[in-house]
Amino acid sequence: MGKESFWASDPNELLRVGKGFTLADIDPDSHAGYDGDKADGEKSLVEGAEILADQQEMLFANSRMGDDPRRVLLVLQAMDTAGKGGIVKHVMGAVDPQGVQLAAFKKPTAEELEHDFLWRIRKQVPEAGMIGVFDRSHYEDVLIGRVRELAPPEELERRYDAINEFERELVEDGTTVIKVMLHISADEQKERLAERLDRPDKHWKFNPGDIDERLLAPRYQEAYQIVFDRTATSDAPWYVIPANRKWYARLAVQHLLIDALEAMGLDWPKADYDVEEQKARLAAS
Amino acid sequence: MGKESFWASDPNELLRVGKGFTLADIDPDSHAGYDGDKADGEKSLVEGAEILADQQEMLFANSRMGDDPRRVLLVLQAMDTAGKGGIVKHVMGAVDPQGVQLAAFKKPTAEELEHDFLWRIRKQVPEAGMIGVFDRSHYEDVLIGRVRELAPPEELERRYDAINEFERELVEDGTTVIKVMLHISADEQKERLAERLDRPDKHWKFNPGDIDERLLAPRYQEAYQIVFDRTATSDAPWYVIPANRKWYARLAVQHLLIDALEAMGLDWPKADYDVEEQKARLAAS
Repeated sequence: MGKESFWASDPNELLRVGKGFTLADIDPDSHAGYDGDKADGEKSLVEGAEILADQQEMLFANSRMGDDPRRVLLVLQAMDTAGKGGIVKHVMGAVDPQGVQLAAFKKPTAEELEHDFLWRIRKQVPEAGMIGVFDRSHYEDVLIGRVRELAPPEELERRYDAINEFERELVEDGTTVIKVMLHISADEQKERLAERLDRPDKHWKFNPGDIDERLLAPRYQEAYQIVFDRTATSDAPWYVIPANRKWYARLAVQHLLIDALEAMGLDWPKADYDVEEQKARLAAS
Repeated sequence: MGKESFWASDPNELLRVGKGFTLADIDPDSHAGYDGDKADGEKSLVEGAEILADQQEMLFANSRMGDDPRRVLLVLQAMDTAGKGGIVKHVMGAVDPQGVQLAAFKKPTAEELEHDFLWRIRKQVPEAGMIGVFDRSHYEDVLIGRVRELAPPEELERRYDAINEFERELVEDGTTVIKVMLHISADEQKERLAERLDRPDKHWKFNPGDIDERLLAPRYQEAYQIVFDRTATSDAPWYVIPANRKWYARLAVQHLLIDALEAMGLDWPKADYDVEEQKARLAAS
């Protein structure tokens, strides 16, 4: 557990997908592990923001001086309106933009479809020192891919293994992989879509296709359950975050990131030059 | 001039490189156009942050619904320690990370050197709806390129014209190009480098090569003057920002961005679907 004192129990443990996990058992209204209310949560988020920014700067510093290969990859998956954008804005927004590598994966282009599904993903893997964020990811290829039958069953089967292999490679290269599914209820989604239709400043966030996807929600839940069953590994764990309360979801994801960084035991890197010698050179310049 | 009320006169006018501009005439200690002190400046920056974030969101919205091609490119050039990183962190850090496209140009790789100097630059041009930031840029190829004689004189000559042509293309594609040189004094730079050597948490930001570059400062000033003479166009103006006071430089760059966005006269895009029809579909879902 991290230095932040506001968690009653470690969300890392509470929210991690373990053996026998069932998505249907998760209450999207929950604020598991956090005793406070929304106002407390927003205050805690501000406190956590500073810790996260400091930790990331240290990670970055070590990549620049000392060739530390470590990095973090946050994978965000969710149904529409569940709050991926809010996580990027309110959690990642606190980190120096120079330390964040954001990749949003949309519907694949014709060129991307000519390659293996991991081709476009590999190009966006974060560099050393960075926190990478995938807004949607390779998991789309076994989520919408399964629900809309975009690939034959044997190809879908192959992909789970390919994903596990790919993520193991990432971990071996020094990447801490954190996979997050933001979980909202059907009613909460309905309210959020309604708000987008009610407010002219939100119209651009709505797409008629969002309702088509919504109608497929039960099949997406099944597809997510298979994803958890097949790809929740100790190398690259999944976390299911109750997300009906935006403040809680943001706080929980922030904590997972802080926890991952603190587990690295980071410190400022030692100078790879002679400090006194450089002071003398500078004084003479 | 923007909606922010704290500028005594428009920094856009004051700081723009015009005919007969001479870099040597600029006082790096100045806070031209802004009457307040550091505390005021920091408060103004917070106020401006909200305006900038809102404007950028509207730009982004129009790119997503309505295919508005417009975007902004901020080019940052400066000697070491002048505060490019601080601009990215404190000015761009206030904008939703989903709306910022940051590209840091380091020493070119072997592959990059095999191509024209604009090859790697073109790949990083911001997409519609984004604020792109170049932390160093194609101008390195006529700055360090000239000072360290990395290219023959005729190639350097060719590059100024190629840059003007490239930037004209960007503008024709809907890009507002804002080119900024952060200007610090030799003494201020010495202090900032000394701080990096004094503080173990800053050692990673120092490189012995920084002193080599510092010794060439007079030649860089000449190279910058030629850049201004050759590439300060009405399409893609240069601004020289006095940067001995970090708070002022940040405020001035923030203002240039706000001013560019406000000049677009942005509003929320109209829905490209029938809102009432979608409300009915949602209610039935």
